[in-house]
Amino acid sequence: MTQSIAIIGASGYTGAELVRLIATHPSFRIKALAANSKAGQSMAQVFPHLRHLDLPDLVTWEQIDFAGIDLVFCALPHKTSQEVIAQLPAHLKIVDLSADFRLRDPAAYEKWYGTPHAAPDLQKEAVYGLTEFYRDAIRGARFVAGTGCNAATGQYILRPLIADGLIDLDDIILDLACGVTGAGRALKEPLLHSELSEGTHAYSVGGVHRHLGEFDQEFRALAGREVQIQFTPHLAPFNRGILATGYVKGDARAVHAALQAAYAAEPFLEVLPFGETPSTHHVRGSNFCHLGVTGDRIPGRAIVVAALDNLCKGSSGQAIQNANLMLGLDETAGLMLVPCFP
Amino acid sequence: MTQSIAIIGASGYTGAELVRLIATHPSFRIKALAANSKAGQSMAQVFPHLRHLDLPDLVTWEQIDFAGIDLVFCALPHKTSQEVIAQLPAHLKIVDLSADFRLRDPAAYEKWYGTPHAAPDLQKEAVYGLTEFYRDAIRGARFVAGTGCNAATGQYILRPLIADGLIDLDDIILDLACGVTGAGRALKEPLLHSELSEGTHAYSVGGVHRHLGEFDQEFRALAGREVQIQFTPHLAPFNRGILATGYVKGDARAVHAALQAAYAAEPFLEVLPFGETPSTHHVRGSNFCHLGVTGDRIPGRAIVVAALDNLCKGSSGQAIQNANLMLGLDETAGLMLVPCFP
Amino acid sequence: MTQSIAIIGASGYTGAELVRLIATHPSFRIKALAANSKAGQSMAQVFPHLRHLDLPDLVTWEQIDFAGIDLVFCALPHKTSQEVIAQLPAHLKIVDLSADFRLRDPAAYEKWYGTPHAAPDLQKEAVYGLTEFYRDAIRGARFVAGTGCNAATGQYILRPLIADGLIDLDDIILDLACGVTGAGRALKEPLLHSELSEGTHAYSVGGVHRHLGEFDQEFRALAGREVQIQFTPHLAPFNRGILATGYVKGDARAVHAALQAAYAAEPFLEVLPFGETPSTHHVRGSNFCHLGVTGDRIPGRAIVVAALDNLCKGSSGQAIQNANLMLGLDETAGLMLVPCFP
Amino acid sequence: MTQSIAIIGASGYTGAELVRLIATHPSFRIKALAANSKAGQSMAQVFPHLRHLDLPDLVTWEQIDFAGIDLVFCALPHKTSQEVIAQLPAHLKIVDLSADFRLRDPAAYEKWYGTPHAAPDLQKEAVYGLTEFYRDAIRGARFVAGTGCNAATGQYILRPLIADGLIDLDDIILDLACGVTGAGRALKEPLLHSELSEGTHAYSVGGVHRHLGEFDQEFRALAGREVQIQFTPHLAPFNRGILATGYVKGDARAVHAALQAAYAAEPFLEVLPFGETPSTHHVRGSNFCHLGVTGDRIPGRAIVVAALDNLCKGSSGQAIQNANLMLGLDETAGLMLVPCFP
Repeated sequence: MTQSIAIIGASGYTGAELVRLIATHPSFRIKALAANSKAGQSMAQVFPHLRHLDLPDLVTWEQIDFAGIDLVFCALPHKTSQEVIAQLPAHLKIVDLSADFRLRDPAAYEKWYGTPHAAPDLQKEAVYGLTEFYRDAIRGARFVAGTGCNAATGQYILRPLIADGLIDLDDIILDLACGVTGAGRALKEPLLHSELSEGTHAYSVGGVHRHLGEFDQEFRALAGREVQIQFTPHLAPFNRGILATGYVKGDARAVHAALQAAYAAEPFLEVLPFGETPSTHHVRGSNFCHLGVTGDRIPGRAIVVAALDNLCKGSSGQAIQNANLMLGLDETAGLMLVPCFP
Repeated sequence: MTQSIAIIGASGYTGAELVRLIATHPSFRIKALAANSKAGQSMAQVFPHLRHLDLPDLVTWEQIDFAGIDLVFCALPHKTSQEVIAQLPAHLKIVDLSADFRLRDPAAYEKWYGTPHAAPDLQKEAVYGLTEFYRDAIRGARFVAGTGCNAATGQYILRPLIADGLIDLDDIILDLACGVTGAGRALKEPLLHSELSEGTHAYSVGGVHRHLGEFDQEFRALAGREVQIQFTPHLAPFNRGILATGYVKGDARAVHAALQAAYAAEPFLEVLPFGETPSTHHVRGSNFCHLGVTGDRIPGRAIVVAALDNLCKGSSGQAIQNANLMLGLDETAGLMLVPCFP
Repeated sequence: MTQSIAIIGASGYTGAELVRLIATHPSFRIKALAANSKAGQSMAQVFPHLRHLDLPDLVTWEQIDFAGIDLVFCALPHKTSQEVIAQLPAHLKIVDLSADFRLRDPAAYEKWYGTPHAAPDLQKEAVYGLTEFYRDAIRGARFVAGTGCNAATGQYILRPLIADGLIDLDDIILDLACGVTGAGRALKEPLLHSELSEGTHAYSVGGVHRHLGEFDQEFRALAGREVQIQFTPHLAPFNRGILATGYVKGDARAVHAALQAAYAAEPFLEVLPFGETPSTHHVRGSNFCHLGVTGDRIPGRAIVVAALDNLCKGSSGQAIQNANLMLGLDETAGLMLVPCFP
Repeated sequence: MTQSIAIIGASGYTGAELVRLIATHPSFRIKALAANSKAGQSMAQVFPHLRHLDLPDLVTWEQIDFAGIDLVFCALPHKTSQEVIAQLPAHLKIVDLSADFRLRDPAAYEKWYGTPHAAPDLQKEAVYGLTEFYRDAIRGARFVAGTGCNAATGQYILRPLIADGLIDLDDIILDLACGVTGAGRALKEPLLHSELSEGTHAYSVGGVHRHLGEFDQEFRALAGREVQIQFTPHLAPFNRGILATGYVKGDARAVHAALQAAYAAEPFLEVLPFGETPSTHHVRGSNFCHLGVTGDRIPGRAIVVAALDNLCKGSSGQAIQNANLMLGLDETAGLMLVPCFP
């Protein structure tokens, strides 16, 4: 049965990635595309790579007739998202890709985002969208909040290790390189090609990156106590991809075994043989996440490296995976695209 | 009905691209993968981005049992290809991706490749694989020779203009930028990242690039006279993509109309509105080719720009498009992947 | 003797490049740096790569005490430049890096820039800054207008050929790839890393790029008749560098000889042996321009390729070369930096 | 007084970087360039960016007349270096850029490099070339062994902290991204542009990278006990640059103060204001190293990030800095080139 889909916030990169994936999805059909700042334009004007597709023109989200829509992907900027979603009809299934509904605790939201939440009731309803760990809740949910792309990557590394009590909870470091699309299509000087290509730098150093709010929330729930990790993201000169390197104190073989066990049945999480390490090259454009575990020369320490595509598995691919569940479809529908290498 | 496929030369980039595309093809099933230099390895070792696929291990091509194979893609290096194909069972349908069978005339082959052809009978049998212009012949062919990636791009620009007599045949310039995968996975110093990234240069300048052999052959046949174009390729620091800029003498509006008419029914060739220009970004990872026509300020001159992905539409995607025809399938099967942007 | 220098428009890339070069210049001393939008900041805040230098903080240009200044580099955006320069003290030597004073004819200016010139008297006074061809005039000038970076590259290819009557003036094509800094530090969506890296496209196709105004002016003066060239720029995914490929009708050996003769004594123009082609990699970060000439397989046609660094030889390096002349210094002072490869 | 210089191993990237820097050095003059595999070629053939320089042609090292040479830079591959240097005349001052003489202990050498040292006497003589910490010994040395580029970066972060007893010696993590030239000009598949651009991966994970031998040696000497750090290098898609992120347990303000105090008088080491982080963009092509310190949200933890150019400060620039000292020259001679940004 065909599912009618609307995308709000279709002029950003996650919006475009949703369209890319839905174009070969067997059951989804795009009925409306909204982008208030570019309403009236065709999608081909905004994203010429979608030129061959038969897509509705961009409208404002207020212009969408939601009567015939089964599910809405909301790919708006943070803060805007909560304002818009609060006004959507209550019957709609919604997958939000913004940061607005990832934190369940209003106080945590205000701490990390600097302003009170404008839709606290919705905040309570939202199911956290890390598919592999919230699958049952997502299946029954009306409203799912997609995770941060860095937050997803880090949790794929750490959740089984925390859940199984395999690592020292007070000594976890997550060092991460993120591709440029992680910052979206915003007009900011530091995102110009001339500023970014041919080099790298760290940002949000020292425990101030907002995805830490997600780590704190999720790891606390898993461990039954506060867990504060150290997290340093770097901006690296490629468009797609996150490579996260996790440093943990625990037995490397046990860490590897825990990840293998946790992800054995997962369609998109691939645990490499012990001692191998993944590369963002090998997941680009796909919904796969590759994980590798190596022991350090210092006994009792392990390094876990994970690679995924921030736009796909880290955002729009995850959103579709969740939508598939919410709509009773095969979870992998439309998502088996092979990584595009080289 | 499932078609059983073998790929010979599976450890190069066009081999990997074939596997990527076939993985989501509705009718193809890979039965054998050969790469003599890496026989015994798994495909995941050679191309980790294919790790999640259930693929046969690499063997030597001599080890393949061709009895159950419907079609072979041969992605071997030039010269090797003709030696191997000459030894394959005669019942096999074959699509060759090398340069070995693109030129019908043994003398032309020897001129451009510097050595006599080792399989002149096969050379006669081979159908030139530019799908849109050899569709009927390909449909009935046993053996199809894929075009050069630059040669395909240039012909998409020029064939309708030559066929319709719209341009001066003695004044055609094709200036082209090709991504790095166009040079394959060969171990050559000029292909190192440190040598190539962050800059560009021309190569094979002055009428010596081998794809000119294809242009000469095809344009002569179309025009009924010798047509020599000028052709300058440049190596540009990205992995996938060809951008060809054609300079012709003729009426720009007529040129645009001719391309529109020629490609109106083509599933993969998109002619942009007059005055717009394409970008390789917008075809990356896909089988689409975008073409744009602009008039010059000098009356009677037109600039035609074409963009395609050299690994896909320029090579492996074309090969699958041809294989679909040869096997009586929908020509677009497995090829409707949306370009991967950004 | 030390020359006191001010830079107006110091927060853009050409401003930063001026500072980079002047830092090792034996006679120049920076006395004032102006950038009205960032006045009050230190140069290290705006350009951290200049952190180790002892530089004045940014001020507005109106705050500069021009009494002690010998020469001003004006690196403002187009249109702003003419307004500011018109208000500068008349005793100052000035090198302008904008497009405002490149065209001598007010009508030509209005045609290409869409508005009447605001300082027509200054426009008359400005000497065109293509050092190698205006050396004597520059030496005696008070006010020099730097050339466009594409315009410089094209003229290095074409001027000797036109001057010597070696080529068909009605059939000149200049196809060019320019690095991203050529577009400056402006906040525009098409200049984001995600939009530009990993691909290429043409822009300003068909005779509409403003640097054609310079070509027209200069080639008309050289040839004594109208000379309209075709010119297609492409944006390529690297930061520094222009590679121009010129297609001319003329004898390739004579073309090579003419360039060799014209540039034999030039300190920064290197003509490669016949048949070799240059690369932007090999001029990056330097004031050198490499030129190569190849004959086509079609007799009577030549391809001339030139490579330079758009920020250095194409802009700020040229400006310093001219300033050296205007101040009676060795023309190469501060400019012998070796290209930074890889 | 002019110093006569020979470079052995001039056809690699560190050889080319030496030539680039020496070209504007006030006292060095290149008398001989050796590269046995390319003997007979001109330097312009091997490195066209050096075309404008008046350089001797490449010879074999055995062909060099060392009588008139003051100092030799030896930029040969590991293992080859020790064989060649053992045969050089004893009067020569030598700066070696290979890994062969960095470890003083023959057992440590054999452990990390897998073979006994071929020149143990020379190994004893070699002074470790980390200029800022071995300045006096280098000044009087005949033979200096350049450090590893990663090893230098890590030591700039950690030495003052270890020396001052500010950090927990059992919990030091160094996570690092290195540009592609760090792997040299070797013909290896993983170094092809198509394999490396547009993504990143970790390598030598888990305490097996050879630069750990240097860390172990130096930190043990500083601390008076074994100090094992964790070290994970990543290969990142740019040509020049190392960004090292160090995670230490200690007071962040004290860490910052220690680095400021240690490097206050250093001409090339710039400690940023507390809370700022450096970028490889801002040191590219230069001999500068930028360091930034940030406190984590977890009290008692600090993150120190350092950026330098692996080819320059990490290798050839360091070599020249050391040679300046060995020859009694100003330590900064020839090294004040401003970083090349963008």
